Amino acid sequence: MEDILKRFQVSDGFFGQYQKLVLNTVIPYQEKVLKDEIPDAEKSHAIENFKLAAGEAEGEFYGFVFQDSDVAKWLEAASYGLAVRPDEEMEKHVDEVIALVGRAQQPNGYLDTYFTVKEPDKKWTNLGDWHELYCAGHMIEAGVANYQATKKTALLSIVTKLADHICDTFGEGKRRGVPGHPEVELALVRLYQATGNKKYLNMAKYFIDTRGTEPEYFTEEAKKQGDTSRGWKDRLDYAQAYAPLREQKEARGHAVRAVYLYSGMASVAKETNDVSLITACKNLWENITERKMYVTGAIGSAYEGEAFTKDFHLPNDTAYAETCASVGLIFFARRMLELEKDSKYADTMERALYNCVLAGMQLDGTRFFYVNPLEVVPGISGEAITHRHALPKRPKWFPCACCPPNVARLVASIAKYAWEEEQSTVYSHLFLDGTLTLGGDVKGKIKEETAYPYGNTVTYHFEPEEEYMELTLAVRLPYWSENTKITVNGEDAKAECRQGYAYITRKFSDKDFVTVTFDMEAKRIFAAEQVAADSGKIAFQRGPLVYCAEGVDNDGDVLGLRVKKDGVITVTDSNEFGGIKKIEVEGERVQSENSLYSIKRPGTSAVTITLVPYYVWGNRGENQMRVWMPEV
Amino acid sequence: MEDILKRFQVSDGFFGQYQKLVLNTVIPYQEKVLKDEIPDAEKSHAIENFKLAAGEAEGEFYGFVFQDSDVAKWLEAASYGLAVRPDEEMEKHVDEVIALVGRAQQPNGYLDTYFTVKEPDKKWTNLGDWHELYCAGHMIEAGVANYQATKKTALLSIVTKLADHICDTFGEGKRRGVPGHPEVELALVRLYQATGNKKYLNMAKYFIDTRGTEPEYFTEEAKKQGDTSRGWKDRLDYAQAYAPLREQKEARGHAVRAVYLYSGMASVAKETNDVSLITACKNLWENITERKMYVTGAIGSAYEGEAFTKDFHLPNDTAYAETCASVGLIFFARRMLELEKDSKYADTMERALYNCVLAGMQLDGTRFFYVNPLEVVPGISGEAITHRHALPKRPKWFPCACCPPNVARLVASIAKYAWEEEQSTVYSHLFLDGTLTLGGDVKGKIKEETAYPYGNTVTYHFEPEEEYMELTLAVRLPYWSENTKITVNGEDAKAECRQGYAYITRKFSDKDFVTVTFDMEAKRIFAAEQVAADSGKIAFQRGPLVYCAEGVDNDGDVLGLRVKKDGVITVTDSNEFGGIKKIEVEGERVQSENSLYSIKRPGTSAVTITLVPYYVWGNRGENQMRVWMPEV
Repeated sequence: MEDILKRFQVSDGFFGQYQKLVLNTVIPYQEKVLKDEIPDAEKSHAIENFKLAAGEAEGEFYGFVFQDSDVAKWLEAASYGLAVRPDEEMEKHVDEVIALVGRAQQPNGYLDTYFTVKEPDKKWTNLGDWHELYCAGHMIEAGVANYQATKKTALLSIVTKLADHICDTFGEGKRRGVPGHPEVELALVRLYQATGNKKYLNMAKYFIDTRGTEPEYFTEEAKKQGDTSRGWKDRLDYAQAYAPLREQKEARGHAVRAVYLYSGMASVAKETNDVSLITACKNLWENITERKMYVTGAIGSAYEGEAFTKDFHLPNDTAYAETCASVGLIFFARRMLELEKDSKYADTMERALYNCVLAGMQLDGTRFFYVNPLEVVPGISGEAITHRHALPKRPKWFPCACCPPNVARLVASIAKYAWEEEQSTVYSHLFLDGTLTLGGDVKGKIKEETAYPYGNTVTYHFEPEEEYMELTLAVRLPYWSENTKITVNGEDAKAECRQGYAYITRKFSDKDFVTVTFDMEAKRIFAAEQVAADSGKIAFQRGPLVYCAEGVDNDGDVLGLRVKKDGVITVTDSNEFGGIKKIEVEGERVQSENSLYSIKRPGTSAVTITLVPYYVWGNRGENQMRVWMPEV
Repeated sequence: MEDILKRFQVSDGFFGQYQKLVLNTVIPYQEKVLKDEIPDAEKSHAIENFKLAAGEAEGEFYGFVFQDSDVAKWLEAASYGLAVRPDEEMEKHVDEVIALVGRAQQPNGYLDTYFTVKEPDKKWTNLGDWHELYCAGHMIEAGVANYQATKKTALLSIVTKLADHICDTFGEGKRRGVPGHPEVELALVRLYQATGNKKYLNMAKYFIDTRGTEPEYFTEEAKKQGDTSRGWKDRLDYAQAYAPLREQKEARGHAVRAVYLYSGMASVAKETNDVSLITACKNLWENITERKMYVTGAIGSAYEGEAFTKDFHLPNDTAYAETCASVGLIFFARRMLELEKDSKYADTMERALYNCVLAGMQLDGTRFFYVNPLEVVPGISGEAITHRHALPKRPKWFPCACCPPNVARLVASIAKYAWEEEQSTVYSHLFLDGTLTLGGDVKGKIKEETAYPYGNTVTYHFEPEEEYMELTLAVRLPYWSENTKITVNGEDAKAECRQGYAYITRKFSDKDFVTVTFDMEAKRIFAAEQVAADSGKIAFQRGPLVYCAEGVDNDGDVLGLRVKKDGVITVTDSNEFGGIKKIEVEGERVQSENSLYSIKRPGTSAVTITLVPYYVWGNRGENQMRVWMPEV
């Protein structure tokens, strides 16, 4: 099947604009950052490190041990860009970087500039803390993406050689090992899917089978190094190695590592039809999404370890809520959909995408959040020792720059997440305005028209190659739409509904159209009472968009706002941010008292509270922001 | 004037019971801990360290660099105990420990077992991190207390020699230096007050004058040691050295260090009538009590650095709220009262005492909290990486055992905080059932009768030595009593009210009595809207006691409770905990939903919420606890 990115033409709608931003601005901007051409941005040195490894420059390695991954993720994003929209100039840049990567590769296939340049004797000696397999995974993903986009094999050959080297090094009868930071697992499955070579799948399966089993690898490795400085339980939680993966039921530790790992698990489970692994994936999914996820689709409650904490511990102000973790949650969700068609996976994909992930990028594409809190109070956020990570303003770049290219590669490849074809069933998981050319047995196009996420209808038009195309259109019924109406040619559709999808089977001619109308009233959202941080509070959502109150819309103060329990909610059009819908809701403002504690009930005045979509917050200067607001 | 502790005889009322617990149980228990005689408690080794320093035992120093201070604080508490209630057996124990301390002292007066035993070459080389002056301060306080209690001079001689050694070592023309952990400042003023030797006051003033002035001492010291690992701004904040003390307006850094320092500042300011220092004390007081204090009188919002954070940042669940910090706040408050008679100081003293400090000790006196959160959720509290410090259950002892002896010395010496005599004015700052023998020019006794903190009246009876005693009784009018009634012999009193005190001047005969009746209705408490953690929430207070909801009284779940805005509040008598008053308030219980987020408003059922005084929480097993509850 031809690459979906080449078969789906996004229109100039909401996501089309985002994709244009990523292609026109973000990817070129990030290339400049990697080449240290942006003044005032954090030094990257990532391309220079490859030159050093290739013996083409003098100097010292600079950056994290995983600095290479920034280049890999950029190559992946840029390759998606080329698939979506051919661009000779960009392709030349990509090819030049690929050639450089090739020259930096060692004759045996090894590829990691940190160890090549700085510590050649320490290759593969500390899988727990260093990131060779992680960087390899990202480069492998880039190789697959580049091949699928361009049909060129330069990078694919490099990463195949790299993967062969990994397969030669690790496994039964070879070295025992598992990656500290998962990523290579899902990448090896992608390489298997692209090449058909099963040894890559087996290698991924080995890493998954070995993790957390006795003798526990990281414990052994650290013992060898005489490292007793870290608490073992914490360390094993941190690295998702606290038990064999098939026995794990609780998402623990570093949130990004976790969801990358679970994505790899789901991929291996699918490819090997491994029932116990599928069960583990489902248990971990439930634990995250019903116990440990913010309403914005963010995950990771603590800065310490960038980690999951305990069930229902979801502090809004000190949330870690890393952009990458939500990107990873989307990876995991998309793979769960391949295991099981249940709208809960796509609902979560959408929740994370339209809220946490989009908020991770400034609207002009040049500044990024690593951390996406749900409550911000300037003077505390970014300043109190407990809040140094939760910045009130997006920085230009980060020393650890994992998030920006992750947003870029996700947005560029969004069609992968929106559509899925299985035999003659076409799944519409996410709603994007644009045209899909079918890639399987059914020949033709589906043109999707929608003003989503603001508009409440999606219309599918059909363009069969022949007279008609016989297929099942499976449309997700989002959890937030209490009453979704589906019509075919204006008449009530005969749709079969299963696990959150409406299945419409028909011979579609070019005159046919399916219209889905969502209930897009702005809604109050209630958190489970176990979430202490949200007690007595509500959030607002309209369609997939979670809303928040910002000071700039509310006389500079959000903390004093209370939402009226039965207050009227009004949705208004705004020209800000290129056109959004704001929510206005009746509320009260508590008058400031002079004393910290008072036995006198503070006065209140009636106000209209204005809310904007969470993804636009922080684009108008530093100010208070709150997603969950007390209700009175 | 004879020591107040010997002049005030507490009755068997609320505080009498506490004092009995401290004398009968806590002080003997702590002695056993210091002598490592309690099985299962954290190893202390503190007495053994003194034996090592005295050359009377073999082995290695064990414990923190400030382990000696546990012994000093126990000696101080035990000495207060001897003042309050002579006890030959205990006095023998105290004298034995004092003799040991004397044998551990170096010929030049130096006294610190860590450096004597373990690092004799490093004495006075790292004032920033190590705690020699801190330990010295505590031993000096113990020496003064022991002398005032027993008139024996053994420990006073030891600490005078130690103080002389400090005076010989530091100051203009000698070594420059300031203590990392303040304490010696307030102790030196106490030594000056006990001995009349002004050089101790001057030494205290030197430490206060030098702190934060250029060249900043800790920066210089760390430079000498080649230590560049700590951020200087953080470090200077941590150590209250970010500016000269007279210029500081914001309480920053380690909360205990801060309030110990401010106590020393207030003492020096009083003794030297230093106007700029008085102003700084007032500014810092305002900053703490109007920006950085919990409703329980707890201070220190962050585990990180055990520190103050930013104005209005008062998280309930991750609060550090160290018991010692509230003890120190009481020290500071008491000294501010000597500078200015304003009830706000005594109100805060009372707030901290009856809530945070008493909660620091289990009701049987054998277990202690270091950290006193205002919200506890078992499964998260004490377990999540962000909540490891906030235990749901009091441990037996701590490796760093500063808090238990601090509670003991405060409770044992409570009369110091309750009463103040200035010429012929007798201030009644705190309300304790018992009899005071006046110590100044006016001769006679005042017998105070009250069932405080539960009873709403305080009656003062007078027992003049002659026919009458002419004096001014100054009674604090607590902020929480909106309508305090004062009568003399049953008739409305002619009282002059100034800054929260009612002054009643009269020739009191033994037939006269003054009755104060407080408004002790249970009240809703509102936090300033800037406190994000308390938005939309209320707390309850009756008299000085802040209340909380515990699971054990509320069907095992507190997070689902909402207080009705206009609900009726009922106060009921309970036999639990030897007799307390509970509060019952109308509320709702939110029904648990199956999903983490819901667009359906969860159902509620009407419930009566039961609240208990905060100081008794955690005495009935681990369960949820909440001070601030959402209001609906």
